[in-house]
Amino acid sequence: MTEPIRAIDIIRKKRDGRELSRAEIESFIDGYTKGELPDYQVSAWLMAALLRGLNRAETAALTDAMLHSGEVLDLSDFPAAKVDKHSTGGVGDKTSLVLAPVVAAGGLVVPMISGRGLGHTGGTLDKLESIPGFQVGLSSARFREVLRACGCSMIGQTAEIAPADRKLYALRDVSGTVESPFLICASIMSKKLAEGIDGLVLDVKTGSGAFMKTEEDAAFLAELMVETGQRMNKKMVALLTDMDQPLGCNVGNLLEVEEVLDVLRGQGPEDLRELCKELAAWMFVLGGRERELAAAKSLYERLIESGDAFRKFRQMVELQGGDVDAIEDTSLLPHAKHSIEVLSQASGYVEKIESEAVGTACVVLGGGREKKEDSVDPAVGIILHKKVSDRVAARDALCTVYYNDEARMARAKHLLQQSYSIGDSMPSPGRLVRRVIGPQSASQPSQ
Amino acid sequence: MTEPIRAIDIIRKKRDGRELSRAEIESFIDGYTKGELPDYQVSAWLMAALLRGLNRAETAALTDAMLHSGEVLDLSDFPAAKVDKHSTGGVGDKTSLVLAPVVAAGGLVVPMISGRGLGHTGGTLDKLESIPGFQVGLSSARFREVLRACGCSMIGQTAEIAPADRKLYALRDVSGTVESPFLICASIMSKKLAEGIDGLVLDVKTGSGAFMKTEEDAAFLAELMVETGQRMNKKMVALLTDMDQPLGCNVGNLLEVEEVLDVLRGQGPEDLRELCKELAAWMFVLGGRERELAAAKSLYERLIESGDAFRKFRQMVELQGGDVDAIEDTSLLPHAKHSIEVLSQASGYVEKIESEAVGTACVVLGGGREKKEDSVDPAVGIILHKKVSDRVAARDALCTVYYNDEARMARAKHLLQQSYSIGDSMPSPGRLVRRVIGPQSASQPSQ
Repeated sequence: MTEPIRAIDIIRKKRDGRELSRAEIESFIDGYTKGELPDYQVSAWLMAALLRGLNRAETAALTDAMLHSGEVLDLSDFPAAKVDKHSTGGVGDKTSLVLAPVVAAGGLVVPMISGRGLGHTGGTLDKLESIPGFQVGLSSARFREVLRACGCSMIGQTAEIAPADRKLYALRDVSGTVESPFLICASIMSKKLAEGIDGLVLDVKTGSGAFMKTEEDAAFLAELMVETGQRMNKKMVALLTDMDQPLGCNVGNLLEVEEVLDVLRGQGPEDLRELCKELAAWMFVLGGRERELAAAKSLYERLIESGDAFRKFRQMVELQGGDVDAIEDTSLLPHAKHSIEVLSQASGYVEKIESEAVGTACVVLGGGREKKEDSVDPAVGIILHKKVSDRVAARDALCTVYYNDEARMARAKHLLQQSYSIGDSMPSPGRLVRRVIGPQSASQPSQ
Repeated sequence: MTEPIRAIDIIRKKRDGRELSRAEIESFIDGYTKGELPDYQVSAWLMAALLRGLNRAETAALTDAMLHSGEVLDLSDFPAAKVDKHSTGGVGDKTSLVLAPVVAAGGLVVPMISGRGLGHTGGTLDKLESIPGFQVGLSSARFREVLRACGCSMIGQTAEIAPADRKLYALRDVSGTVESPFLICASIMSKKLAEGIDGLVLDVKTGSGAFMKTEEDAAFLAELMVETGQRMNKKMVALLTDMDQPLGCNVGNLLEVEEVLDVLRGQGPEDLRELCKELAAWMFVLGGRERELAAAKSLYERLIESGDAFRKFRQMVELQGGDVDAIEDTSLLPHAKHSIEVLSQASGYVEKIESEAVGTACVVLGGGREKKEDSVDPAVGIILHKKVSDRVAARDALCTVYYNDEARMARAKHLLQQSYSIGDSMPSPGRLVRRVIGPQSASQPSQ
């Protein structure tokens, strides 16, 4: 004869800073998913959880309850290890589109479920949809077929995956409870672990363009996610990476796909290439494809040089309905009608580029969303010609704006002008990978 | 061109522990009262306010916003000072029914708006309604007429008074946000100040039968309410009084009215008489009727001895439709059908009486409410024959239970048996008034 667990008691317990049991957390999440708990009780609980915090056991229990609120893919019939990467979001961050094909080309399975852009950061699905015909809304059955055929597939979240997270996220957004590492961890991990993966590489961004502005906050979240995943028997590693300036040079959906194609062909900007290699190497290590990080990096290089990674991307695009001719010849992609250069007003060194302002300029152009309902113009965006520590002369082009609307261009240009700081001294470039928070002793940055 | 204040920003600000402006608090409360803000935003804010706290300026602004969400009585055309008393609630606490008539008999105006009982504590309205015919639901116009005619009137909260508090209280009840001194202060003070009073005496109960179990918590709440009232230009004093055992001997609506009539006749138990004198004296002092507390106590004694206080109570009962014959001859009141004594199982001294258990026993008999919708049996209750530090022999009657239902009686009797602790040593009786938190230097208990 057990009493039912009352929601009000669970709220009070967390309010008073006491530890919730797994059964209490399960009952609360289950009740909310089923519509038995009203929003006003859950938002009060979320605020208590944000302010009081959750310990590791509670965070894992919350993640688990949210994960099991919906479908969890069972990919145990795939013989290869299943791995994925998740980024906390940045400006110009298009590594997922490189990683899925290169890691699949290396023999692992990458069942990647991604999101759309919101605010100043872009979304993987929006980038993929700038390839004409590319379908991100596959059924679970078709997702499996694509994975079976080419080892990687990239889709959007289905209604069956972690419905508790969808409800909770919408409520957090309007109740001031987004900014909790514990709730962020449970949200990210519940969705990612629903992919049925064995290992996960986390790219936790830190810096002015990231959600986590300080390295301490980023490290806290990274450690939380790594430990939560490990408690759920997943192989985990987190890289703290720089988001003090945009990653690579291209910002905007179609422009970012073009830069991805460059990287898959062994070209493209060095920071983006380096980060892709680093993340892919960790995916190979977690998936057991290589034991040493150095060997895994060599494997990455071979897969790029041989063209295997590029062909894998082409195959995935074809299987998901995308225009493969446009992949081979990017002049076939639907580009913006106009472009204009933003010129430097001073000479000296680029000391800083405010990533958030660059991301916002892209949203202003129509390339991102201010509200969830907004549609996205895939063609517009920005190509940066100068990055931090580059030397510039007055009237040098800092970047080029690609646009379809004059008024939007004017606002974006103003933002971009202001996002660059030109000074007299050359700043020492920040390390791209600031810290590795990982499985064994790998807690120092790799060089 | 001022931007509208967004609810989400107000939630975040309080969440982050920053001070809210008066305009922000007004906008939030106004939006909620008008139904523009959803419950889930307000409950998240309430939890943030509970955990982060409000400073004195915020507490006063919240009180003021809640006060002005509805009608504020304007009694400025009454020449005498308007004063009231509020108690945080206890078991056997029936002082309001003595204070209103005695203070009105002394020439001040007492516009008393009270509540109903919920949980283990009783409510003034329920007690009044045990007098056949007594109407607590007067219109504002009729309330004024009664005040004009006899100087006191006792009614229930109208729909026009502090509607924000009614909505907020219902939400706090289900969102785990009742137990915040800041929110309690705003709730109490917004309702009391809507009475249009000049001065307010607070009786803050402390001890096992009170909402505030420790003297520290009670003192914190008392200071908060005193300062909040003073910031709103009201004369304020708070008495911290003992609720380690029930006040007086009678618990139960009709039984408590009988004890009130005893006190108004100069009889009744000493603790109740003393507390009434203390509270009334402070009401006289705040209302400017006497300068010194000692003189105010003498005034109280004269008004009781002369019968003026009793006649004032009779007049109020008559004006509010109650049966005055039953006031003169309490045998006409509708008593319970049965009674039974609870006997002591040991001999020694009464060391403790758990007030909360006594209050619960009264609820079990049908004399109080477990849920708001419950109706109340006015006749049932308990008369205590032994109180703390009284000597008892085995099989002495500790108390008598008045009941209308055998099964309920059995449960109540069991509770009462357990609520008494009989021991070998005589406990030193606690001071009734533990502390005075007041206007000038009156911070020491009066003797």
